[in-house]
Amino acid sequence: MIAKKDFSESQDHENFPNSRRIYISGQIHKEIRVPLREISQSPSRDTRGEVTENPPVRVYDTSGPWGDPSMSPDVTQGLKAVRREWIEKRGDVAEYDGRVPNPRDNGYLSDTHQDMASRQSGKNRLSYFPGLRRKPLRAVDGGNVSQMHYARRGIITPEMEYIAIRENMGRKAAFESQWSQGNRSAGVRGAGQRGATNTMKHQHPGNSWGASIPEFITPEFVRDEVARGRAIIPANINHPECEPMIIGRNFLVKINANIGNSAVASNIEEEVEKMRWATKWGADTVMDLSTGKNIHETREWIIRNSPVPIGTVPIYQALEKVGGKAEDLSWEIYRDTLIEQAEQGVDYFTIHAGVLLRYVPLTARRMTGIVSRGGSIMAKWCLAHHQESFLYTHFEEICEIMKAYNVSFSLGDGLRPGSIADANDEAQLAELETLGELTEIAWKHDVQTMIEGPGHVPMHLIQENMQLQLESCHEAPFYTLGPLTTDIAPGYDHITSGIGAAMIGWFGCAMLCYVTPKEHLGLPDRDDVKQGVIAYKIAAHAADLAKGHPGAQYRDNALSKARFEFRWNDQFNLGLDPFSSREMHDETLPAEGAKTAHFCSMCGPSFCSMKITEEVREFAAQHGLNEEDALKKGMEEKSVEFRDKGTQVYQ
Amino acid sequence: MIAKKDFSESQDHENFPNSRRIYISGQIHKEIRVPLREISQSPSRDTRGEVTENPPVRVYDTSGPWGDPSMSPDVTQGLKAVRREWIEKRGDVAEYDGRVPNPRDNGYLSDTHQDMASRQSGKNRLSYFPGLRRKPLRAVDGGNVSQMHYARRGIITPEMEYIAIRENMGRKAAFESQWSQGNRSAGVRGAGQRGATNTMKHQHPGNSWGASIPEFITPEFVRDEVARGRAIIPANINHPECEPMIIGRNFLVKINANIGNSAVASNIEEEVEKMRWATKWGADTVMDLSTGKNIHETREWIIRNSPVPIGTVPIYQALEKVGGKAEDLSWEIYRDTLIEQAEQGVDYFTIHAGVLLRYVPLTARRMTGIVSRGGSIMAKWCLAHHQESFLYTHFEEICEIMKAYNVSFSLGDGLRPGSIADANDEAQLAELETLGELTEIAWKHDVQTMIEGPGHVPMHLIQENMQLQLESCHEAPFYTLGPLTTDIAPGYDHITSGIGAAMIGWFGCAMLCYVTPKEHLGLPDRDDVKQGVIAYKIAAHAADLAKGHPGAQYRDNALSKARFEFRWNDQFNLGLDPFSSREMHDETLPAEGAKTAHFCSMCGPSFCSMKITEEVREFAAQHGLNEEDALKKGMEEKSVEFRDKGTQVYQ
Repeated sequence: MIAKKDFSESQDHENFPNSRRIYISGQIHKEIRVPLREISQSPSRDTRGEVTENPPVRVYDTSGPWGDPSMSPDVTQGLKAVRREWIEKRGDVAEYDGRVPNPRDNGYLSDTHQDMASRQSGKNRLSYFPGLRRKPLRAVDGGNVSQMHYARRGIITPEMEYIAIRENMGRKAAFESQWSQGNRSAGVRGAGQRGATNTMKHQHPGNSWGASIPEFITPEFVRDEVARGRAIIPANINHPECEPMIIGRNFLVKINANIGNSAVASNIEEEVEKMRWATKWGADTVMDLSTGKNIHETREWIIRNSPVPIGTVPIYQALEKVGGKAEDLSWEIYRDTLIEQAEQGVDYFTIHAGVLLRYVPLTARRMTGIVSRGGSIMAKWCLAHHQESFLYTHFEEICEIMKAYNVSFSLGDGLRPGSIADANDEAQLAELETLGELTEIAWKHDVQTMIEGPGHVPMHLIQENMQLQLESCHEAPFYTLGPLTTDIAPGYDHITSGIGAAMIGWFGCAMLCYVTPKEHLGLPDRDDVKQGVIAYKIAAHAADLAKGHPGAQYRDNALSKARFEFRWNDQFNLGLDPFSSREMHDETLPAEGAKTAHFCSMCGPSFCSMKITEEVREFAAQHGLNEEDALKKGMEEKSVEFRDKGTQVYQ
Repeated sequence: MIAKKDFSESQDHENFPNSRRIYISGQIHKEIRVPLREISQSPSRDTRGEVTENPPVRVYDTSGPWGDPSMSPDVTQGLKAVRREWIEKRGDVAEYDGRVPNPRDNGYLSDTHQDMASRQSGKNRLSYFPGLRRKPLRAVDGGNVSQMHYARRGIITPEMEYIAIRENMGRKAAFESQWSQGNRSAGVRGAGQRGATNTMKHQHPGNSWGASIPEFITPEFVRDEVARGRAIIPANINHPECEPMIIGRNFLVKINANIGNSAVASNIEEEVEKMRWATKWGADTVMDLSTGKNIHETREWIIRNSPVPIGTVPIYQALEKVGGKAEDLSWEIYRDTLIEQAEQGVDYFTIHAGVLLRYVPLTARRMTGIVSRGGSIMAKWCLAHHQESFLYTHFEEICEIMKAYNVSFSLGDGLRPGSIADANDEAQLAELETLGELTEIAWKHDVQTMIEGPGHVPMHLIQENMQLQLESCHEAPFYTLGPLTTDIAPGYDHITSGIGAAMIGWFGCAMLCYVTPKEHLGLPDRDDVKQGVIAYKIAAHAADLAKGHPGAQYRDNALSKARFEFRWNDQFNLGLDPFSSREMHDETLPAEGAKTAHFCSMCGPSFCSMKITEEVREFAAQHGLNEEDALKKGMEEKSVEFRDKGTQVYQ
């Protein structure tokens, strides 16, 4: 049975319950306003009826203006260009006329085709994007506008301060005394002191496998990490609608959602909606992997409406331009495509420049050959031309384009394994070495770079992937697809891969590319996107917890406290999907009164362990033991008594 | 949106496609017939139209007679007593009248209540189980009929040989030459030789963290593991319907599904159906956690129809017998309940004998107190009586009951953490030590024992749990609930816990207790059961792969080969859920012709990497290179050429 439900029946398109959008201003750059979602809670009532307030919980929010109930963005106008002013202030960019649009940009769509396509999409307005009136920007005088370039010159950009605030999730006040007590390094066990304040601050120390995660993220730390190449800020100067975020091992683990039409399915409207939908549930970046017709227009609509960085694989569009014949590709067509997309505002490009001619034979004996689309296209080109890939031979020219717009590299793993059998094989690891070389070249140009990784990998080979990547690529951020830990569950690959994603995130992977239940079977629809994003939010958060990311456990603590205190609505609201959890609860106990009942349908009233625990504590209190330490004192007495009689029943 | 679909619309209640039930006979015990499911495949066709057969793939099958299309068991009669003859042959048991049924066995249901309950269940026939005519069996003269007892006397029982055959999954022939080639220990990378035979045999060496997994499971190995206490065979002599299986670190990782009604929801019919449903999808054991009325009858129906071992938590029924008042429990009532359930045929009992008086105060400062139902009941009893738990003080008497029926211990973790905050705390680890002591006592009586484990644990503390369990409990099998790796996703806890389950399975956990999406929210329905079982089959199999369990990768290889060769139906059929994967594929490409198309709706024809890889290989072949090594040779030439020119583009 597939997870399917008519969207109109469900409430999950509504705003998150008990939530409000807040904004935090900058200190260095007063003009920045960092969005967070704040979830309010109901108070706790103890057994004597005493009431204690529970502070609201702030969470990272990727939904942009679409998630701010006070705003009502118009999809035909696009989002407000929040970064435009910051970019202009730096005084190193200029508008220019840009590349002249070309019918083949949309896959040689004739006007007739174009009309037909827009009629098929159901709404004419969703054909040519009507909103943008501005010309593209570009660095002046062959300059470099990459965040890495600024960082290396010691400049803290507004983007960097924005990110510092965002990464701390506004939780500083909530957990700062935790650190001063030194719990984190002391490795204490258990929840520590009872009572809301201290319990809430408890967090396990974590094991970050050699990462350098500070207690608080400062703007200077952000700058330093970007300068060292350990993190990237994907933020094309032509995507000023984008809210800055960072991808790096010493920051919160991020997730990417892939969307995009294909020749067989989808239309523009659906893709824009999938982008909004993915960011509602928490996608940190979105890749538009469209391959069908209308490819330029689809991308324009997505970028203009996206509050998160957009990535693409430009070779897909280049291939459309040559009618799908890989051997007809050329550096000129590819270069033209890079500029076209850089002018539109794509924030990072997947470029499979590591697929070298000599690596292709290494895939000959594989179970599943080459499974990367870009990788297979380049392999075919190489073979047809008996030449080294133009992506490799022109790599420095690509760097020149990247730095003129602050597009980041996502160096593609064209030879990633497509099955458990092929994991960590020679082909994959040879390419990884080359990606390391290319990283050094990109860094020579101050171009931000991350590295893509597999794919299908059994659990025991995941850490090797991470370690080799860190070594080969000099700690450039790793960005992996899954990995899937088994091949035997088509239809459930969000789970097979969620396992691998959580693990590699823990080991140091900076961004996890989601896999939906539909992987290997078809193009994901709205619900598949949601299922994929939520599985990956779980993986990323589990990784943050295991790494001991400061404050990560705060949300877990708040939710568990609500659960233990039978604050059902708070339990729903603090979760990743309040709508579904409420719906599941209400299947058996729909009455509003059940939302404060001290049991649920799982065990019923007399078998609820949490209720019994409550009674145990009450019992202790009734026997004259004072509140806070009632149980402890009462039981300690008994323990002494017991120990006096000899603790061993069987000697 | 919740995964919901009207069951009647779906095809997943049908038999698995392209599958047949086969039986393998014993060598020592000729009478045994071990069931496996055999999935047939279509042949491969290469680009020149040449056809190669693909051998059928055998998979472990837990569905019993319900999954054999040639049988048509009657739920009112129960399953055939396959083990009855083996048990009688041993000559150490005798029928006896058994305990006299008591109204309070069903929670003091009066006849009126009983009638009402059966009417509510919709079918009168599902009230008193009408099928069983036999009396209970018991060891004669205070003897011991545990499999451990036989094993320690050097006896290879039919159960043991059955298990040896079952664990090898009939794949011996398919992968034996792999071992003789020494691939496993040599740690070769990649898929090895191309060509169906060799590729299929490739398997990664794995890392078993010190387990002792042999290349083939022999009956003698099974005996030895049971004798050492490293594995258990839960098989009550009064559950002769049960098909033998084993739980131990050196065997395939198993999964358990919990079912059971509560005072708030469910009825008998639903629970029997959930059991059949869970075993259809692969549950290796089922726990009946019923707590409502009709508790005795529900269990009777489940056991008589179950081909897998049934576990229970007897304190639940004992509590019903005293009207839900924990303080009214007594050893006598508990003992009576154990005998009642042992006579019915329960295969393992969860007994929370490790909740000691002196440990209860350790939970006072926890975020979520005591979350085990059994644990909280015993804590309350201890506190109310100011006495040590009767489960602990009467532990040796419990052993006497266990060995008279071959009931196995599942020593409950009454103090397991119920939140990330409480993971690996003093209370949990103190109890674990006591469970180790109790294991030694059980083993002194030759009573089979496994140990239950958490719960909620962040990823970086999972391995510590496993290591401490192995040390404290002398390698007795570990049986964990999840663990959940974060608390923030109610509604998706099959995923939060699937991550932890896969990891702890890899580290050495023998059986994984599933968690459904409904965990923390309500009682699972049919679809929740399916989602939970499939998530856990994924976790268990991912663990088998990572441990390098012999032959585990065979199914992954077969499925990946089918995927690469665009044998869509084979891809569906070899997966865990052929129905859903086919349905997902057909959402976009429903035509039967698309089942052999060399693309899918994800990428469309011109972007299919597997199709392009095919073309790359074809291209090489067309250029006069011979078949098997076409690409390799062709590319090697080019590589030499390339290397001659200098491999570095950037020097």
